[in-house]
Parts: sequence; C-alpha cells; structure tokens
Amino acid sequence: MTRNPQSPENLFLQSAFCAQGVESLQSFLEWFEAFKVKSRFEVFRRGLGDLDGWRFTEGTGNLVHRSGRFFSIEGLDVTTNFGRVRHWMQPIINQPEVGILGFLTQRIQGSLHFLIQAKMEPGNVNGLQVSPTVQATHSNYTKAHGGKQVPYLEWFLGGHRGRYLVDQLQSEQGARFLAKRNRNVIVQVRDNEPIEVLDGFFWLTLGQLFALLKMDNIVNMDSRTVLSCIRFAGADNGLPEATIDAGGGFAANVHVSSCIAEKSCLHTFDALISWLTRMKTTYSLEVKRVPLNQVEEWSFDGNVIRHESGRFFTVMGVEVHIDNREVAAWHQPLIESAKGGMICFLCQKKNGVMHFLVQARVEPGNFDCLEMAPTIQLTPSNYDPDRPDTLPPFSSLLLDSSAATVRYNALQSEEGGRFYHDQNRYLVLELGPELDLPLPDNYIWMTIRQMKEFIRFNNYFNIEARGLLSCLAPAALPAQV
Amino acid sequence: MTRNPQSPENLFLQSAFCAQGVESLQSFLEWFEAFKVKSRFEVFRRGLGDLDGWRFTEGTGNLVHRSGRFFSIEGLDVTTNFGRVRHWMQPIINQPEVGILGFLTQRIQGSLHFLIQAKMEPGNVNGLQVSPTVQATHSNYTKAHGGKQVPYLEWFLGGHRGRYLVDQLQSEQGARFLAKRNRNVIVQVRDNEPIEVLDGFFWLTLGQLFALLKMDNIVNMDSRTVLSCIRFAGADNGLPEATIDAGGGFAANVHVSSCIAEKSCLHTFDALISWLTRMKTTYSLEVKRVPLNQVEEWSFDGNVIRHESGRFFTVMGVEVHIDNREVAAWHQPLIESAKGGMICFLCQKKNGVMHFLVQARVEPGNFDCLEMAPTIQLTPSNYDPDRPDTLPPFSSLLLDSSAATVRYNALQSEEGGRFYHDQNRYLVLELGPELDLPLPDNYIWMTIRQMKEFIRFNNYFNIEARGLLSCLAPAALPAQV
Repeated sequence: MTRNPQSPENLFLQSAFCAQGVESLQSFLEWFEAFKVKSRFEVFRRGLGDLDGWRFTEGTGNLVHRSGRFFSIEGLDVTTNFGRVRHWMQPIINQPEVGILGFLTQRIQGSLHFLIQAKMEPGNVNGLQVSPTVQATHSNYTKAHGGKQVPYLEWFLGGHRGRYLVDQLQSEQGARFLAKRNRNVIVQVRDNEPIEVLDGFFWLTLGQLFALLKMDNIVNMDSRTVLSCIRFAGADNGLPEATIDAGGGFAANVHVSSCIAEKSCLHTFDALISWLTRMKTTYSLEVKRVPLNQVEEWSFDGNVIRHESGRFFTVMGVEVHIDNREVAAWHQPLIESAKGGMICFLCQKKNGVMHFLVQARVEPGNFDCLEMAPTIQLTPSNYDPDRPDTLPPFSSLLLDSSAATVRYNALQSEEGGRFYHDQNRYLVLELGPELDLPLPDNYIWMTIRQMKEFIRFNNYFNIEARGLLSCLAPAALPAQV
Repeated sequence: MTRNPQSPENLFLQSAFCAQGVESLQSFLEWFEAFKVKSRFEVFRRGLGDLDGWRFTEGTGNLVHRSGRFFSIEGLDVTTNFGRVRHWMQPIINQPEVGILGFLTQRIQGSLHFLIQAKMEPGNVNGLQVSPTVQATHSNYTKAHGGKQVPYLEWFLGGHRGRYLVDQLQSEQGARFLAKRNRNVIVQVRDNEPIEVLDGFFWLTLGQLFALLKMDNIVNMDSRTVLSCIRFAGADNGLPEATIDAGGGFAANVHVSSCIAEKSCLHTFDALISWLTRMKTTYSLEVKRVPLNQVEEWSFDGNVIRHESGRFFTVMGVEVHIDNREVAAWHQPLIESAKGGMICFLCQKKNGVMHFLVQARVEPGNFDCLEMAPTIQLTPSNYDPDRPDTLPPFSSLLLDSSAATVRYNALQSEEGGRFYHDQNRYLVLELGPELDLPLPDNYIWMTIRQMKEFIRFNNYFNIEARGLLSCLAPAALPAQV
C-alpha cells in the first residue's frame, strides 16, 4: 500500500503508468497534426543588419532590441583550466531575466493530467512542438495586467489556489546563455476546479508524455526541463515493489532498482558532494563581458556573425509569421549551431543497480563554474577530423556503439525561441558489465535517484543532462501507440 | 541498535556525547592558557598609508599587496530591491581564492577526536582561539612544496589515505566579502595511523568542543563553519531513541525531535525549495565592481577608510607580531565593524517539534543573490536611534527578550585574519507556544534537520546562520567543566 497516494511522488508515478488519459494518444496526435495544418507558420532568413527593431549598438556592436527588452547578443572573454582550449572569446546571449516554465496539472479520472500547449517557435525544425502550459518571460508576466494576458499565467504567480508539486530554478545552456535560469513549476489544481481548455491546449498523462518523448522532436526543451524535476515514488516510499513491472523495460528497471537499493550505490551521496567540491576547487572559470565587436576570431559578414573557422555556431536573423501567437509577425536573431550534435549518458550496472556516468563540465555561461553534464556532449564537426585524439573522452564509444546496448535514442530539439533548427541526438547507451572504463578525474558514476536529488537544488545538473533524464520513463511503456 | 556505527552521522553523535576525551576539558583549558602566555602576540594600529607591502593602486585607489597575493580592498556598487536601502556603494574584500578549513579526526579510545589548533590571529579580541587543524589559503597550498609547509595539509589535498566525513564549499560574510568561499573538510584518519601532535595542537571530542562553544570567543569562526556541516544520526538512522537523553537539554531535544518527527515539519522540504525559488525570483541583486576611490560616501581620512556617517565599518591597518606563525611580523588591513552586533535565531515549537525562523536575506557579496540567514542580524548603532521603525523585523523581540526563553547566549568572534575585534552576540530565543508571529514574505519556519539538509549544498545558508547552528549540541552537556 502506498503511504500517501496524494504525495507528489506518488501522483507522478501513478500518472506515468497511465498510458491512456482522458483522450488516447492517437487522438492527441490527430489533434496535434490538425492544429499544425491550420496554424500558419513561416520563417525567412534575414540579414542581422536588416532586422526590424534590432540594431548593433554604437561603440560596442552589441546586438540589441530597440526596446531594451527580450535579449541581447554580447561578447564573452573566457579563461579556464578545463579542457584543451584554455582561452577564447565568443558571442553569448544575455537575457538577465528569470522566466516561468510551468505545467498546470489536475487529477482527471483519478490520474494526474498535464495541460500541454501546442506551440510554434520560429527555430523549431518542425514548427509545432509540445510546450508547458506557460512559457513566460519576466517581461511577459510583469506587464501581465496590461496587454494580452498569457493564458493560465495567474496559476504561477503565487497566491494559494494551486499546490506546487515542483518549483525550482534551473539553468539553461551554459555554452550559449550567460547565467540564464528559469523557474520550473508544476502546479496541481484541485480536482473539482473548473479549468477551461483553450484552443491549442490538451490534457495528457505523464505516461502519454513519455510515449511522445520516444519520438523525435515532439516534446520541446522547456517541457523536458520541467519534467526532469519530477521525482517518482519508489518502493521505499511505500509503493509495493510488486506493483511496478520491473520486467517492463530498461528505464523502469533503472528507476525501481535505484529506489530500492540505496545501499548498493557505488558512492554515498556525501562522497558525491565531496567529489563535486573537489571539482569546483580544481577547475576555474573566469568570464569577462566584452563588446561584441571586440570578440576575436568572430565577425559580422554582412549577413550573420560567424567564427572564422566556420565551426561552432552562427548568429543569424529571421522574419517570423506565426498565426497563434500574441504578435503575428516579428524579426529576431537566432543561434544556428553546427549540426550533428550528440548528447549521451553511458550507463552500466554496478552492484546490481544501474549507474550513469556523470561529467563535471565547465561551460562559459555557467552560474557556478561547472555543472554536472551527460557523459558526452559532442558535435563532431567542431573537431579536426584528422585529430581524433582531440575528441572528448568516450567519444569513440559514441561513434562506434557496438560495445553498448542502445537504451534510448531520439532526436530532441533545443529551445526554438533562441535556436534555429537545433536538434541533438539524445542517447543512453548501456555498457556490458565486463567493460571496466578508466575514468578521468571529472567523471563519476551515480544512480538516477542520486541525480534527481541533486536536481532539486539550483545549478547542479545542466540542461542537456536534465533533458536526457526526462526521457527515461519510470514505467514500462506500451509497445506502440 | 545502530545500523552502522561507523557512519559519519553516528561517529559524530557518539563523539558529541563524549564529554571526557583522551584529556579532560580542564586539562585542555590549562594547556590553552599556558600556550597563550608563552606566545608573543602584539598588534598595533597603523595608518593604511603606512602599511609595509600594501599600497593604494594608482588610478583605482584599490588597496592591494605588492605581491598581488592575499586579498585586496575594492569598491562595490550595489542595487537591490531588498530591504529599505535600494542602492549604495561600499568597500569590499576581494579574495578570489578557495581556501581549506579542515579538521583532522581520528577515533581514539573509541570516540572520534578532532585535532584542534590553538591559533593567534591579529584581529582576535583575545589573541588565541581554537581553530581547525588546517586553515590554508590557496596560495598556501599551491606553494606547498616550497617554503614552510602548513602542518597536516597533506591530509586535505586528495589522495586516499583519509576518509572524507564532510567536504563542502561554504560561503563567508556576504556583507564584507565578494563571493568568497572555502572548502570545509573533516577527514577521518584510520584508527591505527600514527599522528604526531605538534606543538599548538590538541585532541578534543565533539562533546568538549560543544562545551567550549558555550563560552565566549574560544572556538573561532572557521571552526564553527566546519562544525556546522556535521549531521547527526537520529532515531531514523538506527540510533535507538532511548539512548538519547531527550530530557538533557534544549538543543538535544531540538536535534532528536527534528530527526524523529519529519512528518511533523510545518513545511515539506519541497515547499521550502519552492519558497526559496520564489524568493530568488522576487529579490534582485546587481553588483558592479568599482574603483575604491569612486565609492561614494566613503573616504580615506589619512588613517582609515570610513563612511561619512561613522557607521557600518572602517578599513584600518595593523602591524602584527606573532611568535608561533610562519612569518613572525607583518602589516595588513583589517575590517573593524560597528560594535554590538547581534545574531539571533527565534525558535518555537510547532506540531511538537522545534522550528527555527529563517530569513531569506540579500547581501552584496552573496554568490547567488540571497542566502538563508538567522532571524535577526542586527547592529543597533547602524540605525537611527530616533527611527525604531527602520529596524529589521523582530528587532523588538531581541531588544526586549522578556517574551522569550534564552536557549543560547554567547559572544563569538568573526575571522580574526580579516576582522578586528569583531564579536557578535549569538542568541537562540525560544518563543512561547501562544505567540503567533505574523511573518513577512521572506521568513519561514524550518526544523534543524531541514536546515542541515540545505547546508550540504553550496551557498544556501550564510555563515552567520551556520555559525549559530554549530553551537547547538545534539547531546546534553555537562553542567560545568
């Protein structure tokens, strides 16, 4: 028997097992396709010098909006003792606002449902993706009572009508954003509270969201980061082991065994904190904001801002027409990263419990020098093909995965409001028990429960790691929709 | 029966109950007095312009050492929406190094003993205080193999001879330091490892340290911050409730009941995280480093740097002669704060469990905008005596504590290597159950176990709060030495 079926952990677990919500997944997919067809969505490339409302600031060359709002593209001078390259300069997105990424949830027919929004973003490779109920910047919600209201926003502005199941500050891409964070929120509405489902919104269970996470580019980055904050009840929380179909799939096993067998963890939690403390004192990161026009090796070619090697990323401009948004047409810069990125956790059974290989990783926009990251974050085209020795550790396992069993494999998109057609291959590879990997100092094994414990606190796991973890369902999923 | 008597939590608890170590507390106090007498210790005030090795940098006016090492005094421009004053400038200590504060421990006659150092610091009001085994700056330990070695340092530089019982990054005073952090470490040496006790060092149990913490100005700030990281085993960790003398004192009750009765916490831990998330998105802190000679309302009067009102603090200079240090004489700046500071936790029983009233508090040097702080941090002389309405919340309870029971009351010193005769009255006041305090938004009740859980992670509790918590023994203390 569960100790408290209404605890957030139990509500989430029960919803994860719920493969059929108030509507079937098939109905959702049909609705989603129909919504895409009826929504006008056009994006044209435009030179950065020709973006309405945007200009290069005199003196600094920083790219800013005339209102001073949204975000700006500035320069960063980076010095670190981490990795092969110890000093460089680069453009960076400066958006010193804490936005809200929030799911409204409600128990419907006994199972927690998430109110998702079908949302167009200009950078999305496929236009429409599943987003949280609310994606609101601080500008959005401070002018909340003037102009067009962001739907459902009132549930996330405090007050005491809803129950906060998750409410955490979480980081965004440290390689692209300067110390950006968002508030990740899941609010539960009382069972009997009437919630109107507006056009473009749909109720899904966690089980259905996990099914969508097995597909390419359906569930957007903002949804994934919020979902990564969820912690599931385990056997130690009163859920009987027998009710979990531990034979039902890799991910289910990972969650269940991790919950049951804390004593089988390779490292105690205090030992992990000690390792992280050592990493934070070993590695240094010094960043200085510099004018964009003083960023060495980068230049504006009359159209985009690019690195002289053609690698890494460019800053490009777009003209956007989207029907179902507050503003129907606008111009903005987007970041276009080199294609072919791969984000991978290696995992392996230790003491009978699945452990994940976590990397302590310095990225220039990190709030606190380093965050924990997936085993491998790799875009091969950023490296010299004649120098495979310069690739990050374990890359060879990724490029030839015959030694491993593929446990998760899908293309997932990064935030389409800032990144243009940015999709990465998200992978979980399980190594056979016989393989004994030698670990560089900045790698350590931990269980999914240990990772989830760190995620409760600010700025411990980066968004790439969280986005990948969010894809691992605690329950056996139906074989097909 | 304990589940694992060798767990850090059980080792700490057992040591806290151990009132008599390999030497009695009386022997320690005699040794300590004798050591003080034989140590030469002289500190003279000197003008900041006359400090050997220190100079005001041309252009900025920043006060720096000619080697570029140690620390510097610079300027800070602070803007925040927290508190009554929304913008100000001030001098700040910039010491961008992570030092080590470490206790070496070993089980002797079955109880964990801490190897303390009797250490002179120039700013100490009484010269000698009890410090951790090692207080080393990064400069100390990177030049470790040239020059005079810091004793016992090798135990804290990694390697695998010792067991790390505690190993965390913790912040220092956010009102005085710019994002300063130290590594707080407790290493356990194997029982049979021979450890030479050098002159100036002494083995004490935790029980003896707690007895010293009841006295004024014996246990220094660096010791207190390390001790605050300790978590004690509770009934849920296998320690039978009956072995704890719950009738033995206020602090013992606080620890025991907090451990036993997690369900009686007023707020779940997730609710506390949610509150903190809201605080971090509600309050803003923007700091800009500015040249010291551009800090408005502060000036160098030919002797010290002071605020035009005479309030807050001054930056002064001293000439130091100390016998038992690597360098026998030197000059340095110190901060002299306004006298009469009080640092206080209010506590009150809720659901039968003692709860502490925690403040979310913005301080300019904070790493992440705000940290959790004691209920009250107050230096009355910094306020206009004719405007009691400008005092921080709950100050009246502190200035007239007749409504409360005093549970802890001692003078404790701030770090004597940076602060001159800086002692604060540390207080824990218990409110009667009938008093129903209305709480401003940035205050919340939590148990000691919840606070200890936050302390495991970086930059959640400030050093004032940690220093006060470290004084609360989990065990009944002997009535007198």
